[in-house]
Amino acid sequence: MSLLIKGARVVTAADDYVADVYVADGKVTTIGAALDIPADQVIDASDCYLLPGGVDPHTHLAFSLASTTTADDYESGTIAAAMGGTTTVVNFAQQRRGQHLRAAIDDGLAAAEGKAVIDYAQHIVITDMAAESLGEIDELVDEGVTSIKMFMAYPGELMVDDATLFQVIERAGQVGALCCIHAENGPVIDVLVRRALAQGRTNPSWHGRTRPELAEAEATHRAIALAEMADAPVYFVHLSCAEALQEVTGARDRGRPVFAETCPHYLFLDSSVYDDESFDTAKYVLTPPLRPSHHQQHLWRGLRTDDLQVVSTDHCPFCLNGQKTIGAHDFSKIPNGGPGIEHRLQLMYSGGVVAGHLSLRRMVDVFSTTPARLFGLFPRKGAIAVGSDADLVIFDPNGSTTISAETHHMKVDYSMYEGWTLRGAVRSVISAGRPVVVDGLFVGKHGAGRYLRREQSGQL
Amino acid sequence: MSLLIKGARVVTAADDYVADVYVADGKVTTIGAALDIPADQVIDASDCYLLPGGVDPHTHLAFSLASTTTADDYESGTIAAAMGGTTTVVNFAQQRRGQHLRAAIDDGLAAAEGKAVIDYAQHIVITDMAAESLGEIDELVDEGVTSIKMFMAYPGELMVDDATLFQVIERAGQVGALCCIHAENGPVIDVLVRRALAQGRTNPSWHGRTRPELAEAEATHRAIALAEMADAPVYFVHLSCAEALQEVTGARDRGRPVFAETCPHYLFLDSSVYDDESFDTAKYVLTPPLRPSHHQQHLWRGLRTDDLQVVSTDHCPFCLNGQKTIGAHDFSKIPNGGPGIEHRLQLMYSGGVVAGHLSLRRMVDVFSTTPARLFGLFPRKGAIAVGSDADLVIFDPNGSTTISAETHHMKVDYSMYEGWTLRGAVRSVISAGRPVVVDGLFVGKHGAGRYLRREQSGQL
Amino acid sequence: MSLLIKGARVVTAADDYVADVYVADGKVTTIGAALDIPADQVIDASDCYLLPGGVDPHTHLAFSLASTTTADDYESGTIAAAMGGTTTVVNFAQQRRGQHLRAAIDDGLAAAEGKAVIDYAQHIVITDMAAESLGEIDELVDEGVTSIKMFMAYPGELMVDDATLFQVIERAGQVGALCCIHAENGPVIDVLVRRALAQGRTNPSWHGRTRPELAEAEATHRAIALAEMADAPVYFVHLSCAEALQEVTGARDRGRPVFAETCPHYLFLDSSVYDDESFDTAKYVLTPPLRPSHHQQHLWRGLRTDDLQVVSTDHCPFCLNGQKTIGAHDFSKIPNGGPGIEHRLQLMYSGGVVAGHLSLRRMVDVFSTTPARLFGLFPRKGAIAVGSDADLVIFDPNGSTTISAETHHMKVDYSMYEGWTLRGAVRSVISAGRPVVVDGLFVGKHGAGRYLRREQSGQL
Amino acid sequence: MSLLIKGARVVTAADDYVADVYVADGKVTTIGAALDIPADQVIDASDCYLLPGGVDPHTHLAFSLASTTTADDYESGTIAAAMGGTTTVVNFAQQRRGQHLRAAIDDGLAAAEGKAVIDYAQHIVITDMAAESLGEIDELVDEGVTSIKMFMAYPGELMVDDATLFQVIERAGQVGALCCIHAENGPVIDVLVRRALAQGRTNPSWHGRTRPELAEAEATHRAIALAEMADAPVYFVHLSCAEALQEVTGARDRGRPVFAETCPHYLFLDSSVYDDESFDTAKYVLTPPLRPSHHQQHLWRGLRTDDLQVVSTDHCPFCLNGQKTIGAHDFSKIPNGGPGIEHRLQLMYSGGVVAGHLSLRRMVDVFSTTPARLFGLFPRKGAIAVGSDADLVIFDPNGSTTISAETHHMKVDYSMYEGWTLRGAVRSVISAGRPVVVDGLFVGKHGAGRYLRREQSGQL
Repeated sequence: MSLLIKGARVVTAADDYVADVYVADGKVTTIGAALDIPADQVIDASDCYLLPGGVDPHTHLAFSLASTTTADDYESGTIAAAMGGTTTVVNFAQQRRGQHLRAAIDDGLAAAEGKAVIDYAQHIVITDMAAESLGEIDELVDEGVTSIKMFMAYPGELMVDDATLFQVIERAGQVGALCCIHAENGPVIDVLVRRALAQGRTNPSWHGRTRPELAEAEATHRAIALAEMADAPVYFVHLSCAEALQEVTGARDRGRPVFAETCPHYLFLDSSVYDDESFDTAKYVLTPPLRPSHHQQHLWRGLRTDDLQVVSTDHCPFCLNGQKTIGAHDFSKIPNGGPGIEHRLQLMYSGGVVAGHLSLRRMVDVFSTTPARLFGLFPRKGAIAVGSDADLVIFDPNGSTTISAETHHMKVDYSMYEGWTLRGAVRSVISAGRPVVVDGLFVGKHGAGRYLRREQSGQL
Repeated sequence: MSLLIKGARVVTAADDYVADVYVADGKVTTIGAALDIPADQVIDASDCYLLPGGVDPHTHLAFSLASTTTADDYESGTIAAAMGGTTTVVNFAQQRRGQHLRAAIDDGLAAAEGKAVIDYAQHIVITDMAAESLGEIDELVDEGVTSIKMFMAYPGELMVDDATLFQVIERAGQVGALCCIHAENGPVIDVLVRRALAQGRTNPSWHGRTRPELAEAEATHRAIALAEMADAPVYFVHLSCAEALQEVTGARDRGRPVFAETCPHYLFLDSSVYDDESFDTAKYVLTPPLRPSHHQQHLWRGLRTDDLQVVSTDHCPFCLNGQKTIGAHDFSKIPNGGPGIEHRLQLMYSGGVVAGHLSLRRMVDVFSTTPARLFGLFPRKGAIAVGSDADLVIFDPNGSTTISAETHHMKVDYSMYEGWTLRGAVRSVISAGRPVVVDGLFVGKHGAGRYLRREQSGQL
Repeated sequence: MSLLIKGARVVTAADDYVADVYVADGKVTTIGAALDIPADQVIDASDCYLLPGGVDPHTHLAFSLASTTTADDYESGTIAAAMGGTTTVVNFAQQRRGQHLRAAIDDGLAAAEGKAVIDYAQHIVITDMAAESLGEIDELVDEGVTSIKMFMAYPGELMVDDATLFQVIERAGQVGALCCIHAENGPVIDVLVRRALAQGRTNPSWHGRTRPELAEAEATHRAIALAEMADAPVYFVHLSCAEALQEVTGARDRGRPVFAETCPHYLFLDSSVYDDESFDTAKYVLTPPLRPSHHQQHLWRGLRTDDLQVVSTDHCPFCLNGQKTIGAHDFSKIPNGGPGIEHRLQLMYSGGVVAGHLSLRRMVDVFSTTPARLFGLFPRKGAIAVGSDADLVIFDPNGSTTISAETHHMKVDYSMYEGWTLRGAVRSVISAGRPVVVDGLFVGKHGAGRYLRREQSGQL
Repeated sequence: MSLLIKGARVVTAADDYVADVYVADGKVTTIGAALDIPADQVIDASDCYLLPGGVDPHTHLAFSLASTTTADDYESGTIAAAMGGTTTVVNFAQQRRGQHLRAAIDDGLAAAEGKAVIDYAQHIVITDMAAESLGEIDELVDEGVTSIKMFMAYPGELMVDDATLFQVIERAGQVGALCCIHAENGPVIDVLVRRALAQGRTNPSWHGRTRPELAEAEATHRAIALAEMADAPVYFVHLSCAEALQEVTGARDRGRPVFAETCPHYLFLDSSVYDDESFDTAKYVLTPPLRPSHHQQHLWRGLRTDDLQVVSTDHCPFCLNGQKTIGAHDFSKIPNGGPGIEHRLQLMYSGGVVAGHLSLRRMVDVFSTTPARLFGLFPRKGAIAVGSDADLVIFDPNGSTTISAETHHMKVDYSMYEGWTLRGAVRSVISAGRPVVVDGLFVGKHGAGRYLRREQSGQL
């Protein structure tokens, strides 16, 4: 199948020009002024931006907690992603304690089979790793799983101790994998949570009040120190606050290969939502919690000067009714997470580019190119260039997008941005050379998404 | 005239792919796999990199001091530039005290007329500016001169006082021009220089010993503070040391629009050259002087994490015999500066990319794309993209380059890198769609270079 | 004459105990429990603190500007000082441009002759110093003038350029004198002042709006850099803001011998006074101006952790009527300065110690001991110890002090603290073994104060 | 019993003067010039310093590890202390896991009973603390045990987890106790140690190579963060390196109540001892290990500018033969610790004061006054003032001291300073008004030392 996209303003992480783009066999093959090549389909993209499809390196599709499973599986989740211009997700395959890593990956692949409408890859989540088993990491890297997530929070459940953290970071670094860290001091937070509950403070607003910024900053500092002793890189997921950013910034200033992502909810929402003590606030029970609004300017600064390299969604959806309600009488039992996979691009464009925080080019970089590069998918993903996968977004800067749980494609009964109207709209999306969204309607195919074996992380 | 470049590995600030590139009427018009378009000339670039031509924003061609004039004029200087893959220079037009800025620009244009073999633009150097005359800045910006240089060194000659510095930075910021600062505390340095001379320390090695790092760092801090009070951006030329970089880094970490360039001689040479007390050391009398070698790792770090955005040459050539000798008995009379315009790319590739300090992509960024962007030339310059000027370098990574005053094209009788053999070679260079270097030979035309009116600085 | 002070709680920079103190021939000779020594006079100081007399190293008595002279001469000024528990002042002798330093000191001595009621010393203010004249500094040090003040503000009047600043700091360091720096970037401030005036902003509130914190921080950084290049110590007068403190803190953290004082008005007043655009605001036209209140917590922090070592008054009194009115129509003509010599101790006790910012011991340290030490007066001054001058304050922590221009002893027609009632009261003061204040009444003698030749600065 | 000490140069944390000091009933009662008071004993101290007796807040007397017990009990240990001018020790009472804190204190008291020749107090070491038992801390504070030690190293043995650390620091802060932290990341160090052993690296030099500076700095940062979240003070024991000092410095710069001690071995010895791979190196198996010599200048800087407040000994003696040899084939089994209680003053005077790193006054401060204050013993200890305990050192600055295991009083068969000859000598020592050392000979009495109930920590 071939496509000819006419007259688009092509914007990449470095460039910005008007051209026609020709796609054949799933790849970009020609870019030129006024191309005259026969194509199965011609798309007029005048007055629109043509962007590389988004790479979302932090999604929880079909992700099971003890009490429940995220509301989106690979099917609904990737449809929603596509509707928002994301054409690649890197989802989490989670090791059960004692499980061989390879088995966890296979479980993840099974969950995706026949469902994903766009391409996908997997991180492995390590919860348990004896020194003798470190070789399992090498095997995974050989098979294209080149990133590992570990938790410094949730002691007794997901948390690994500092010895494990250190050894895995070190081994990963030696074999070209990148460790992704959830940085919060879990033991201290647990003390605060138990104390709040003991005092009868059980409503969801207490989630936000028992996870201080310093608990995140401390863990961020600690993981950086461990990575420095291990002489290895490290990547922080969902960085939420100025104090943690300062740790990342300081490390990068010293030349350490330290990277971090933030998420739209930290850029656009703030902790004032926790002033509402009703259960409605459970919508915002995600981790780390939302922070006071003054943190946002620091996160934008970090994105501008490359101390933050990625905006991911940490999409981890649970319905307010039936799932979040598990913690109706105990905020600590509320499944943590929020929906976001569908609106990353629209929020970043409207609230980031139009608002003057980021250049269009830099938005593309943190939305697509750098996550592709850091997670071993570049230049196949993250680029509009000859030979790259034809994962493309036709984005209408003059359109508008109104967000609502009524209309979104995520299988979750609320939106954190309910009723927000944004500048710009995703008009069409092409995945591997095939339209999956046309004029705002999903036209893709279940199971068309391919599993991506990844290269080593490209960090320079 | 049309050109078809076949099979090159195209490397830009963001991308890296193999393609054919078609050029017509001086611009890139098509990029594709296996292009089959008739062309006046077909160039096989297999096994080579195709890079956007370099933008050198810091050159002193036909630049007059009180005692002498730089050895290269626009002709020899731009030939040498082209031989090294640089296709745009931004040269300095220097205001004489009391002169109207427009007149200084016109003097500069006259010097270039009929000589330049590649495109060129001009910064204005302000040495004198009453509050009432600030409007002259607005006029220049309207005419495409969107950057201003000022000196914090050389009191009584080039130095402006803090009041002028503040007011010009402020006005420039308001009208979209970028101020380029030579940051050294001139008065302190002059005390040290006069003291050395009074003690009979007259040989050139004392140049290096009388300009401490702290004098640079202090002035850097001061200009940043003034720019912050003026709420305006600022750019530092020839940043040479860790202490000054720390000031820039800290300012960027606080979100200030502060930028800086370093130069190859700070990355590859060090102050041990000043151990030689013979007059031969006059080769290295440039400002700031070379620093102890431990500074280099900091400069590389800065380039990697975007605290340094540009590598320029500060090409300011004076012959050792006949020019440098003006200061044979008084190092303070030696014309300050060194030749460099011809070897920026080769040094950066061999000593930067091959040595593992920078990715190839980031080298392109600091060599071409970001200087184009900061100085209002992007996307006309600094890109390989549809619609951009066809300023291209075919670089053979498997070739080698040996540097020598015997063979270089700069009209200066020494090289700071005499006898160095580097990995990689500039094979051919195209300027505005026409070959100016072919297989290592200059084939360009005097006066073919065009004067570039520039847009406002693009800083985000 | 001998004195026996009974039952006081003696508080020094290190100690805190109850004892009797015996004084003979102007010196402390015995400290003990229940001393039974015959004395000319016995003072019951039960329930009171006995403190070493204050050392105020920053006063402007009989100080002439172009337009007027401070309202207090050595007589009224030292009476007011004594009433507030200060028993030593270090006043400024100001060099007129071109004047030999020794002559300026002699002028200062003449002004004090027969007037001072407590002991006094002099700093020299250098406004002009050719390299050839640096030897004058050595002479002054030999004669006991071991500190030098220089201004980085007031270009064309008091400001010295960086070359002079550097050379004087260096020479002073070599011969054991300490340079005291007024750190503000004068040229930038002058631009802001002229601009405000040109815009018709002439009322005194514009004094506060045209001297930004960054202008102080920049100059502080610069002087530290110059002192580091000179390998010499430096002391900042009237440090007023967090940004300047950060520079001092950073320098000390790197081990540099950098010192600073702040003043009560920066600790207790803030820039909200400039919201009043009436001429009454001229009361607060002092330099640096008062800062937003959030700076105060940083200054207290600095005092606690020894990044600030001294609280002085910068007493520089001008009457609101007749003196400040010189600038009735042009704030830049208002004589800069405020009255403060009389209430340093009461403010520091009530607002510092009682308020929980400082320990009593640390208050004594910054009020008396450290200024004595830094300015070469210790252990003669600044101590309650055998052999020290009997300069003592009997301070009643249960008393109270109400401040008013009606009742204060400074010859100035307003107080910045009008109507404030403070915890604690100065009951009696002894200077060189003689009561000068008894039960809150001045009983001293004009001309009894002695001129103090000082030792080198003691900095460790 | 009464004593009259004649003609000494009395040096305290603030003062320096020549006087006679009269002592009665164990306390200083009178200080004066030429005192003429009858006394049981008159000591001529002309040409000597009279210093407050040292307070050593970090000693391990009769301290049991799993494998052995420190070589000094309260008798030999306090004799050695007295010989070195230390008149108060704060020793560790260690909780066994599960033991009630009060019982641990009682065990400590039993060990001291009838043995100590100088006064002593105890810290409690907490190794295990459930949230429900935090009230035990309150009880101890009421009984005068106002400091708590916890370990972040030695997982499985002494280490407490972050939850315990946080809760104890918080509760301690609320009730006026000060937590003393051994800051090293134990889990990471254990990985390094096990790896070294697995590689056959078993000799004592590997002790030094498996405990990196960053492991100390990380734990220091973490404890500071936990203390900040707990809004409580914290004190670091045996701080050894620049990186950890930087964490303490930064916290103090932000106004946090963070304190730290270093020890003579970090000031005077360095990691070059680990170049010797023989078992002799077991002498230096103490924790943290000795660091490269460049750290020393930072530690001296910290002591000068009050970022370090105390020099303690961490006296923890094990004989090379018979005790250290437990780890003859496995460095991790070598009992950690070194002897030091006897030479703190002599080393600090000769290597600190004479060498120009510290003023005499500041030496007294970190040796005696500040440890007394921080650990609730001031002004009973740490002062030469009316009413203070007559704990005094007559120190001859013109004497000399040669250190040797042959002659020292510690019951350990080596010295880390064997053969060093130092400037200055402890001539006589008075404890509670009674001579315990006279002319360098011990004349004290076993069991004369008193147990000290302590006040709350005095930190301002």
